[in-house]
Amino acid sequence: MKKKIKKVNAAILIIGNEILSGRTQDKNTAFISNWLNSKCGISVKEVRIIQDVEKIIVKNILYLSKQFDYVFTTGGIGPTHDDITAKSISKAFKVKYEFHKEAFQILEKYYGKKNFNDGRRKMAKMPSQAKLIYNPSSAAPGFMIKNVLSLPGVPSILNSMIENCKRHLTRGAKTHSKTLNLYTVESNISKKLNQIQKKYKLFVDIGSYPFFRLGKIGVSIVTRSTSLKKLKSVHNELIKLVKIKKIKILKL
Amino acid sequence: MKKKIKKVNAAILIIGNEILSGRTQDKNTAFISNWLNSKCGISVKEVRIIQDVEKIIVKNILYLSKQFDYVFTTGGIGPTHDDITAKSISKAFKVKYEFHKEAFQILEKYYGKKNFNDGRRKMAKMPSQAKLIYNPSSAAPGFMIKNVLSLPGVPSILNSMIENCKRHLTRGAKTHSKTLNLYTVESNISKKLNQIQKKYKLFVDIGSYPFFRLGKIGVSIVTRSTSLKKLKSVHNELIKLVKIKKIKILKL
Repeated sequence: MKKKIKKVNAAILIIGNEILSGRTQDKNTAFISNWLNSKCGISVKEVRIIQDVEKIIVKNILYLSKQFDYVFTTGGIGPTHDDITAKSISKAFKVKYEFHKEAFQILEKYYGKKNFNDGRRKMAKMPSQAKLIYNPSSAAPGFMIKNVLSLPGVPSILNSMIENCKRHLTRGAKTHSKTLNLYTVESNISKKLNQIQKKYKLFVDIGSYPFFRLGKIGVSIVTRSTSLKKLKSVHNELIKLVKIKKIKILKL
Repeated sequence: MKKKIKKVNAAILIIGNEILSGRTQDKNTAFISNWLNSKCGISVKEVRIIQDVEKIIVKNILYLSKQFDYVFTTGGIGPTHDDITAKSISKAFKVKYEFHKEAFQILEKYYGKKNFNDGRRKMAKMPSQAKLIYNPSSAAPGFMIKNVLSLPGVPSILNSMIENCKRHLTRGAKTHSKTLNLYTVESNISKKLNQIQKKYKLFVDIGSYPFFRLGKIGVSIVTRSTSLKKLKSVHNELIKLVKIKKIKILKL
């Protein structure tokens, strides 16, 4: 008999005025969420984008770390004045904000003793007892304290570090998904879709998303479940619906 | 003497499992935020991406509508079972969820009496007393109730409707911004930058964002303020710093 794996969830906390102002398009949410689901079986259940203001960070860290199994933060761990994530998380958890010995050594080696100035040293300051998340591309490590993992905001650096988060995480049940792209409009299938969703409420999530392709309107029906069997049953019911309504399927 | 315009802020609530799962990249945050700032002088201070679950929507609507001048929701106002935004907002504000007469007429005219089925009719159901936000591209209107404005999730439709939000909004003081792209690393300027930020703390926000361009590393210094005069002063101090440090400016 297969061992039942429990569901594990996470939240993402994007820290940075540049995302809020619309200057920078956030790419980290989709990347982290896809990685967590496909590699660790962890589902992201909430994302927040907040200002880099200490009391706002503290409040959100406390709330999200209580509500979810893991919290991933991005941004605010560089050398400048607006990088206050590590200090704010220390405050949230009431631990010292101090030099991490190994992080200090890594950074000193990377920059050389001569060039290891105050700004760079700041990147070795973390919540006391934090575990390092190694950074293969630009040295400055991220860190984990309690169930919070802090990563940098620059997507290319974050992407290079994500595999190093794995050993800190408990795996959950992977969510499988199937997509059916139909040349129809939502309102043509919404009634039947609702019935199928009700029937499988506890096991399968059905999402319906309009799309436009080469001048034609369509709907993507996305089904998601940790059970491949239930996913298959829903898929079969959808195929039945498609046949009855004589809807064309778009194969990608 | 110029009249002092007050600061007006907003939050964005993105409703949809497809964004949380990483399947779809959110583009609405950057679009709404840029539009609000440039056209209405309104700053977005928080964004949340949440599941399409009624009690979660209710909780977030109640919290955000109290904390911010306006709340923009995106997603969940279509015809299918997972479109529960209008119903949830009705619940949050304890008002009836019912057919909006004008919305009903607009949709009936658009689809024709014969094709105006249950799914399509659902798009005319809204919180009682809601004001319509007209939709020039696909008819189904958004709505505003109290300080909450609800828009669809499909970016092209949302973009076509955004100008119709303007008449429902109070204008605030526009935030101006200047960007200086420097060929240097953050840690080279972080100390001085911190001093400048402290000096202008109440008036100007200084953000520092690393970039990579044609194999070279750089830093974008973004200054933001509702006062053009203070912005100029900070800019002059930055130019002084750049000259002293002999940093090359990247002109775009």
